[in-house]
Amino acid sequence: MEHNLWNHVLQVRAQSPLVHNITNYVVMNNTANALLAVGASPIMAHAHAEIDEMVGICQSLVVNIGTLDEYWVKAMLQASTKAAELKKPFVIDPVGAGATSFRNDTLSKLLATRPTVIRGNASEIMALAKQNTATTKGVDSTAESDEAIGAAIDLHRQFGAVVCISGQTDIVVSGDRRSYVKNGSGLMTKVTGLGCSATALIGAFIAVVDDKFEAVTAAMALMGLAGELASKQAAGPGSLQMHLLDKLYNITEEEFSAHLQLVVK
Amino acid sequence: MEHNLWNHVLQVRAQSPLVHNITNYVVMNNTANALLAVGASPIMAHAHAEIDEMVGICQSLVVNIGTLDEYWVKAMLQASTKAAELKKPFVIDPVGAGATSFRNDTLSKLLATRPTVIRGNASEIMALAKQNTATTKGVDSTAESDEAIGAAIDLHRQFGAVVCISGQTDIVVSGDRRSYVKNGSGLMTKVTGLGCSATALIGAFIAVVDDKFEAVTAAMALMGLAGELASKQAAGPGSLQMHLLDKLYNITEEEFSAHLQLVVK
Amino acid sequence: MEHNLWNHVLQVRAQSPLVHNITNYVVMNNTANALLAVGASPIMAHAHAEIDEMVGICQSLVVNIGTLDEYWVKAMLQASTKAAELKKPFVIDPVGAGATSFRNDTLSKLLATRPTVIRGNASEIMALAKQNTATTKGVDSTAESDEAIGAAIDLHRQFGAVVCISGQTDIVVSGDRRSYVKNGSGLMTKVTGLGCSATALIGAFIAVVDDKFEAVTAAMALMGLAGELASKQAAGPGSLQMHLLDKLYNITEEEFSAHLQLVVK
Repeated sequence: MEHNLWNHVLQVRAQSPLVHNITNYVVMNNTANALLAVGASPIMAHAHAEIDEMVGICQSLVVNIGTLDEYWVKAMLQASTKAAELKKPFVIDPVGAGATSFRNDTLSKLLATRPTVIRGNASEIMALAKQNTATTKGVDSTAESDEAIGAAIDLHRQFGAVVCISGQTDIVVSGDRRSYVKNGSGLMTKVTGLGCSATALIGAFIAVVDDKFEAVTAAMALMGLAGELASKQAAGPGSLQMHLLDKLYNITEEEFSAHLQLVVK
Repeated sequence: MEHNLWNHVLQVRAQSPLVHNITNYVVMNNTANALLAVGASPIMAHAHAEIDEMVGICQSLVVNIGTLDEYWVKAMLQASTKAAELKKPFVIDPVGAGATSFRNDTLSKLLATRPTVIRGNASEIMALAKQNTATTKGVDSTAESDEAIGAAIDLHRQFGAVVCISGQTDIVVSGDRRSYVKNGSGLMTKVTGLGCSATALIGAFIAVVDDKFEAVTAAMALMGLAGELASKQAAGPGSLQMHLLDKLYNITEEEFSAHLQLVVK
Repeated sequence: MEHNLWNHVLQVRAQSPLVHNITNYVVMNNTANALLAVGASPIMAHAHAEIDEMVGICQSLVVNIGTLDEYWVKAMLQASTKAAELKKPFVIDPVGAGATSFRNDTLSKLLATRPTVIRGNASEIMALAKQNTATTKGVDSTAESDEAIGAAIDLHRQFGAVVCISGQTDIVVSGDRRSYVKNGSGLMTKVTGLGCSATALIGAFIAVVDDKFEAVTAAMALMGLAGELASKQAAGPGSLQMHLLDKLYNITEEEFSAHLQLVVK
C-alpha cells in the first residue's frame, strides 16, 4: 500500500476534485487553503436553497459540526442525504462529540445518512460509539487508543464507514484492515483546526481514490508528514500553520517516502 | 494614468476610508487584514437592525456573496439599496456566479441596485452577463478573455458599472476605457480569498478616488504587484499570504513603478 | 504585583482552562490560536440548544459582539446569564460600541448580566459609559485617555466589572486600583483582531486567577509583550500575526521580566 499512497497524492493534484465543505467558522479559511495547497478545489456553501445543486456539482462532501446551529444542522443533513442519494462520498468530523446533547443528536442523524468516512480524535470516536452502537466490548481495554479502536470497529460495523482516529498515531479502521500513521508533531495540537484540515483532505482523497481505506490513509499520511516537516522549521504555532500550507503544496515524493512512518495490517 | 495610480495608493493611506464589508466567512480575516495593510479601516456588519446605520457612517460598501444564505442576502440587498440611496460607491463580488440558481437570483437583485463596480473572474463575469443582459454578441470569440470582455461590456451597458475581470491579466472595462494589469503570480490561485481581497481593496479605492475606472485599476495594480513581489519570497501558499499582507503594507513608490505592467487603452 | 504576573502565565499553561468563546467571525481563528498558544483550550459554540451545557463545562466565557446579529445576541445573553448564575467569570468585548443603536442596546443588556471584565478601546469604553452610567464627570478632561479612565471608573462603579482600556498604554481599572501596561507596538493596529485576541486571553486568565485585576493585567502584559517582541521580527502586519502567535507560545520568564513596562498604582 505504501507505494499507492504517493500515487493518490498525485491523483488529487491531477484531478483537482471539487470538494463541498459545510464546516465551522473557526477553520474555514485554513481548510480551504489546505485543500488548495494539495491541488483540490474547495467550495463552501450552506444555504438550504442551493445545497442540492452544490452537492450535485461537487465530487465529495465534508461535514464538520464545530460551530453548528439549527440552520447549519439542517444544511448538513440536507447535504449528507443528497450525497448519499447521489452516491457521492462524504466525510463527517464529529467535533465535540459527547460535549452536549445537541451535538450528540445531530451526529446520530448524520450517522444515519451513512457517511463514507468518520474522522475524530479518540474521545470523539468513543463518544460517538457509546451513543450510537449497541455492541458491548467484551474485552477490557486499558489503553485509550485500544478503547478507541474498539469504538471505531463498532462504528464501522454499524454504519459501514471507514473510521479514522487521529492522535499521536493516526489509526484507520475498515473491516479487518488497519493502518497506523505515526507522523506528525506535538506542536500541531497548538494550532486550531489541523484535525479539521485533515478531514478536509480526506474529502479530497475520497473524491478521487476508489479504495476509501487507502484514500483516508493517504490523506492522514500527507497531513502528518507535512505537519512533521513544517514543525522542524517552526518557532511556534504561528509559523507552523504557515509552513504546513507550504509543505502541503511543495512536498516531494522523496520527502514523502523518506519520512513516512506507516504500519498496515 | 500610470502616475495617478500611486497617488491613489497614497490617497487611501492618507484618508483611511471606513469600508463596510458584507462578505463571506472564509475570507473575512484576510480581507480585513488586506484593508488594514493598505491603510483603510474595515467594518464587518450584517445585522438587519444596524445595516442602514453602518452604511451611513462608512465611505463605501463591499458585498461578496461567497457564503450567502437567506439572512445574509437580505442584509446585502438592504445595504446595497441604502448605499445607492446615499450615493455611496459599492462593489459586488459575484462569487460562484452560475453555480446555482440561488446565486444567480441573488446577483440579479444586487445588480438591480446598480453597483459602482463588479469584480469577478472570467467565468463569473460571463455567467453574470448571460443571466442579466439581453445583448447577443455578434462576434465569435475564440479566447475566453475576449468572451469575458464582451460580457463585461454588456454588463457595463446594462448597469453602468465599472467591470473588472480578474485573472492572469486583470482587465478593467468602463465605456470605451480599458486597462490591463499584467502583474501577479500563478501561486496566488493557491491561496483562498485573494480575489475577495482584491474586491475589498477596490472598496477602499472607490471610497477616495473620484474616477472609478482609475480607482479599480489602482486597486488591481496594487494587489497584483504585492502578490507578485510576495511570490518571489514565498515557499508556497502559506508564506505567500503572509508576505502579501506585508507587501500591501510596505510597498514603496519605487517598487510600484519599477514592476507595474499596465496597458491602458 | 510584577512577580505575580509571570506566575499567572504559568498558571494558564499548567491548568489549561476551557474557555467558551462567542465571538465574531473575523477573528475566531486568531483568538482560538491565541488561546492555544498560551496553553488554554478554546471552545467556540453559539447554538441556543447547547449554550447552557457549554457554559457549564467551561471555566470562563468570552463574549465579543463584533459581527452580532439577532440570533447571536440571544446566544450571548443566554451565555452571560448562565455564566453569572453559575458564578463563572466572563469578559465582554464591546466592539463598535457607539456605532449603532443595535450595538448599544445589546451592550446594555449584556452589562446588566454583570460581566467580570470589560475590555475595549478608549472610544468604546467612553461610548459604553455614556450610554449606561448616570455619573457626570465634574472634572474637565483634555486628554482622551483621562476621559476614558473616568468612563472606566463609572462603569466599574455601576457594574462592578474590572475595566480595561486598551491602546498605546493599556489601562486596567478596578476600584482604587490602576495598572498601566506600556508594552506593544504601533504595527499591532494594522492586524485585525488583536484587541479581540487580548480579550480572549483575559478569558483564559480570569479562569484561573482569583484576583481579577491581576488576571487582566497579566493578560494585557503578555499580549503587549508578545506583540512588541514579534514586531521587532516583523516586516509588516502579515509576519507580525505569525510571530505574535509564536511568541505567545514560546515567551520566557527572562523575556517577560526584561521587557515588561508596568506601572501599578
